Amino acid sequence: MSQGGTPFLKMHGLGNDFVVLDLRAHPLALSPERVRALADRRTGIGCDQLITIEPPRDRGVAFMGIRNADGSVVESCGNATRCVGAVLLAETGLATLNLESLGGPLVVERAENGLVCVDMGPARLAWDAIPLAHPQDTLALDLSVGPLSAPSAVSMGNPHAVFVVDDVDAIDLPTWGPTVEHHALFPRRTNVEIIQARADGSVRMRVWERGVGMTRACGTGACAALVTAVRRGLVPERKAPVDLDGGRLWIEWRESDGHVRMTGPATRVFSGVLDPETGS
Amino acid sequence: MSQGGTPFLKMHGLGNDFVVLDLRAHPLALSPERVRALADRRTGIGCDQLITIEPPRDRGVAFMGIRNADGSVVESCGNATRCVGAVLLAETGLATLNLESLGGPLVVERAENGLVCVDMGPARLAWDAIPLAHPQDTLALDLSVGPLSAPSAVSMGNPHAVFVVDDVDAIDLPTWGPTVEHHALFPRRTNVEIIQARADGSVRMRVWERGVGMTRACGTGACAALVTAVRRGLVPERKAPVDLDGGRLWIEWRESDGHVRMTGPATRVFSGVLDPETGS
Repeated sequence: MSQGGTPFLKMHGLGNDFVVLDLRAHPLALSPERVRALADRRTGIGCDQLITIEPPRDRGVAFMGIRNADGSVVESCGNATRCVGAVLLAETGLATLNLESLGGPLVVERAENGLVCVDMGPARLAWDAIPLAHPQDTLALDLSVGPLSAPSAVSMGNPHAVFVVDDVDAIDLPTWGPTVEHHALFPRRTNVEIIQARADGSVRMRVWERGVGMTRACGTGACAALVTAVRRGLVPERKAPVDLDGGRLWIEWRESDGHVRMTGPATRVFSGVLDPETGS
Repeated sequence: MSQGGTPFLKMHGLGNDFVVLDLRAHPLALSPERVRALADRRTGIGCDQLITIEPPRDRGVAFMGIRNADGSVVESCGNATRCVGAVLLAETGLATLNLESLGGPLVVERAENGLVCVDMGPARLAWDAIPLAHPQDTLALDLSVGPLSAPSAVSMGNPHAVFVVDDVDAIDLPTWGPTVEHHALFPRRTNVEIIQARADGSVRMRVWERGVGMTRACGTGACAALVTAVRRGLVPERKAPVDLDGGRLWIEWRESDGHVRMTGPATRVFSGVLDPETGS
C-alpha cells in the first residue's frame, strides 16, 4: 500500500459498477463533492454508485451506505447488495448474513458457482403501495403509451410498470420509457420494464430506470419482471432466469412469505489505493 | 498487494486518462481484447489509453507503448508522455531523461510546481509534411467551412488545421469539425483547432480530434495552436499559456531548433492491483 492512502475495491454486478469503501477500517468524510470526485470516470476512480461498508448500527454484520455518482443518497440497490454481500460472505465465512441499509435489513446468502442470493423483501401489489394516483387493479393498468399498453404495477420498495410484449428488441424503449415514467398515474414516477416470455421458461427484459434512463441491469426491475410473469401465468414456476442486457439473474417469488429472492454475480475487478495528494 | 495480481497506476493529464502498466516488473501479453477489457469503464479499470512502460530498446530510460481503448496502437500522445515522464522522473531522480516511443525518442524534463515538460519535436510547416492534397501556403489555407475560414496547417507528427476566431465558444465545433477533418484537402484527415488570442497574452483553444471527436485536451493541438499564434503575430513572445477545456498547458516554440516544448500537469489518481480471476 502506498503512503497511507485510502484503500478501495472496484466491483460490478452485471455491469452496474461500484467503488466500495470499507469505512470500518478507514473512516472517511464523504461530502457530495468528494463522492462526485471519486465517481468521475476520468479524474477519479469512476462508478455508478459509491458504496460504503460501515460499522453495524443494529444487529447486522455491517451497514451498507449507497450514494449515486452525483452525491445523492440511495436507499437500496440489488446489484450493490450482491457485491457487498460477496465481500462480507468471504470475510466472515458465513453462509448467510444480515446486512443493514437505509432501505431496511437485508439477508444475503452464499449461492452456487460463486453467485450471491439476496432476499429483496416482499413484492407489494396494492395500488397505494406502488403508489398510483388512484385505485386500479395493478395486474393490468388502464394505460397505453405508443405500442405499450396495460402494464402490471409492482412495488419492490420502488415503483415498476411492467409491459408484456412479443419482442423486447422491437420496442423503442428510450422513446416510450420517459413518457411512462412521468405519466400522471405515477405520482412518484416509475421504473419501466418491457418483458417477453421465452419458450425455454426464461424471461427477457429491458429497463428504463426512473431518474436514470436506459441501464443494462436493474435488480428490482428483474424482480418486478418475474412477479409479473408469475401473476400472468407466463412462466411455469415461481422462479425463472431473467435475462437483462447486462447478463442473467435468477429470480424467485417465494410462496411462503411473498418475498422475492434474487441470485446473481458479484464481480471484483481490482483493489486500489487512492493517492494522498489527489484524493484522501 | 492481493494475491499476485497485476499492479497498475491510474493517471491523467488534463482529464485525458490512462492506465499505466509497468511491464518491466510484470510482463503481460496485451491482445486487443485484453486492452478493451482493461479500458472498459464499468467492467475494467477504464481509460482513454493504456500505457505500457517497457524495457528500453535503445538508449532511453524506458520504452513507452500507447494503445487506444479499442486496442489499436498509437504512436504518440503528449498527455501520456507527461504522465510516464512524471513516473520515471520520480523513479530515477533525474532532472531530464530520454524516453523511447514508436513516434521516436522523447526528452522529458522536470519543471516547476510538479509540472512536466516534454520536447514535442519540430513543428513542420511544409505542405507535403502536413500532408495536404496539393501545394498551398500553410499559413492560410484556401478553405472555408461554415463560419470557419483560412486555417493555418501545422504537423506535429500528426496534421492540424488551426482556425483563428474571435470567440471559440461561439463556434459549433462538433458540427464543423468533422467536415474539416474529412475535407479532400487533407488526404490523411486532420485534427481541427479553433483558437482565440486573449488580451493577457494567453491563447484559448478548443479541439476536434481526428478519429475521436471533441476532447478536453490535446497536447499536439496545443502545440499547433501556439505555433499558429506565433506565425500570425497573435502573441507577444514565442511562448504562451494555452487554455484547453481540460486545463492549461504552457507551450514554447523554441527559436534555436524549431522544437515545440509543452509543460503541464501529470496527475496520479490511484494505484491498483487487478484481481487474478477477472484480469491478469
